[in-house]
Amino acid sequence: MSIHSLKRECANLAWDNSIPTALHVKSGDEVAFDCLDASNGQLTAESTVQSLGTLNMAEFNHVNGPVYIDGAQPGDTLQVDVLRIENPEWGWSALFPGFGLLADEFTAPALKIWKLESDSEEGFTWFDKEKGMKVPLRPFAGEMGVAQKKKGAFSTIPPYHTGGNIDTKHVTVGSTLFLPIEVEGALFSIGDGHAAQGDGEVCGTAIETCMKVTVRLSVRKDKPYTKTPHFCTPVAKNKSEEEYYCTTGVDSDIREATRSAVRNMIEFLVAEYGLDRVGAYILCSVAGDLRMHEVVDMPNYVIGMMMPKSVLGSSSSNKT
Amino acid sequence: MSIHSLKRECANLAWDNSIPTALHVKSGDEVAFDCLDASNGQLTAESTVQSLGTLNMAEFNHVNGPVYIDGAQPGDTLQVDVLRIENPEWGWSALFPGFGLLADEFTAPALKIWKLESDSEEGFTWFDKEKGMKVPLRPFAGEMGVAQKKKGAFSTIPPYHTGGNIDTKHVTVGSTLFLPIEVEGALFSIGDGHAAQGDGEVCGTAIETCMKVTVRLSVRKDKPYTKTPHFCTPVAKNKSEEEYYCTTGVDSDIREATRSAVRNMIEFLVAEYGLDRVGAYILCSVAGDLRMHEVVDMPNYVIGMMMPKSVLGSSSSNKT
Repeated sequence: MSIHSLKRECANLAWDNSIPTALHVKSGDEVAFDCLDASNGQLTAESTVQSLGTLNMAEFNHVNGPVYIDGAQPGDTLQVDVLRIENPEWGWSALFPGFGLLADEFTAPALKIWKLESDSEEGFTWFDKEKGMKVPLRPFAGEMGVAQKKKGAFSTIPPYHTGGNIDTKHVTVGSTLFLPIEVEGALFSIGDGHAAQGDGEVCGTAIETCMKVTVRLSVRKDKPYTKTPHFCTPVAKNKSEEEYYCTTGVDSDIREATRSAVRNMIEFLVAEYGLDRVGAYILCSVAGDLRMHEVVDMPNYVIGMMMPKSVLGSSSSNKT
Repeated sequence: MSIHSLKRECANLAWDNSIPTALHVKSGDEVAFDCLDASNGQLTAESTVQSLGTLNMAEFNHVNGPVYIDGAQPGDTLQVDVLRIENPEWGWSALFPGFGLLADEFTAPALKIWKLESDSEEGFTWFDKEKGMKVPLRPFAGEMGVAQKKKGAFSTIPPYHTGGNIDTKHVTVGSTLFLPIEVEGALFSIGDGHAAQGDGEVCGTAIETCMKVTVRLSVRKDKPYTKTPHFCTPVAKNKSEEEYYCTTGVDSDIREATRSAVRNMIEFLVAEYGLDRVGAYILCSVAGDLRMHEVVDMPNYVIGMMMPKSVLGSSSSNKT
């Protein structure tokens, strides 16, 4: 196993399988990425709402890569273990006119700069210190994906079945993401640091931040049913916390994305646990949770079907 | 405070403000309900898939009530504290052709009878004992609602802005549900016992069961912003569990239901915490979770925006 690092200059604005490889690694290698925030460094801790007017939006959502993983073949699955994220020091959230779930009701731009208190074991940031309102930090990369087999340059704003801007809050340190590989080498990229976010990212931005993130990239030949991003949440710190295996649906129609997430969980349960399809469908209904991971990166929604591992009788160490 | 009980015969198949009151209570009184399951007792622990063919579907989803609460006026909010639920002994899940999120992909009827192991502190039921797969029991009433001001008989199958078949797994013992009152006396009804269910209830049924449930019914004059069902989840048993305040959106379009859930949380944060609307919207994005509580009781979906109380700086005892 080798440890690599990729400079922040190795970044692109598209998912495009013709972009030259920035780094070659072996399956099981670790890679440390130094990612700018979604604004590509245009916003700083001193920015004001007036700064939003001067931004070049075409520079938004760079992703760092692509990384070629030896042995990765179309039909394989890329396992991405999120190993470490350095605590960021500040972040921003904004309303951009025309963007966000309630864009028609919030038409003026807005900017909030957050000072992140990362010293304590469980980092947090004050939303309003006087009112005692604070947000726990749960850093993750909003963008993780691989190149599509389809030729062309695909925007890094929407998520795809191959990942990308999935903006899924659960893929934090200790989590494992699975992505379907469509081209030789997989061509993995990452970016869009989020210090904290809710399921949905409803206003269109999380607590956006620069992010130093280290992942382990491994080729899996034994998960051919992975057609959209799947993930495992981190190992629970204590008995009352739940661990999940999650399948997602990515589609331009929310209902179809929801149906896809359920269908993918059924396929997973049939393949890994030997269930019949009807039993798997019923188990999803009585024990699986539908959560809306991302509802703003148009035109595609990301919906997750999250199954507690305790229901599956899985052990903590089982990453499936 | 008085304690009342309502017989299981006092049940109806519609939300209709002209149905005669079954019970008068004072605000703050407790009422014990003895509810049959969604099939109205047509299915038993000995039923088989063949039994589904003989069911009278027109009898499904009775609700017990209505209960008239003294002093309840249109514009007020009904607070429903779920105090006790007797552990049920068995339950059923079924696929009904034409019903469920993947109805077009699962066209044959199916029935599963569950034996519920309610003796232990945390009840459970085996999904597959050999594989070690089991579902924890979290009983709740799928139907809780009040009469609408609109005249007429409204089916008990879909949920409404006044509640009804919200099928929301989080409204279990220790939870508090808030419903907008539209008629004098509120006219509360309850039914549709579920021993366990995931967010979404994707196959169309939970673990359906008969249910003895006791609730406290109180009129609140100080929550005029309650336009759809809101709820608080139970007080956490330990530090690592989250408590939530949740607003819902109920609509025949999933995206509009989602937007409504977020809009209602913003209104709540403005009203109760003195936030400005932009700040409240951003807080929803970075700390609130969108969950799909119910996606099968057509034509209406129930989506929830769940805000951790720890973010709001609220104490455990604060029921808002």
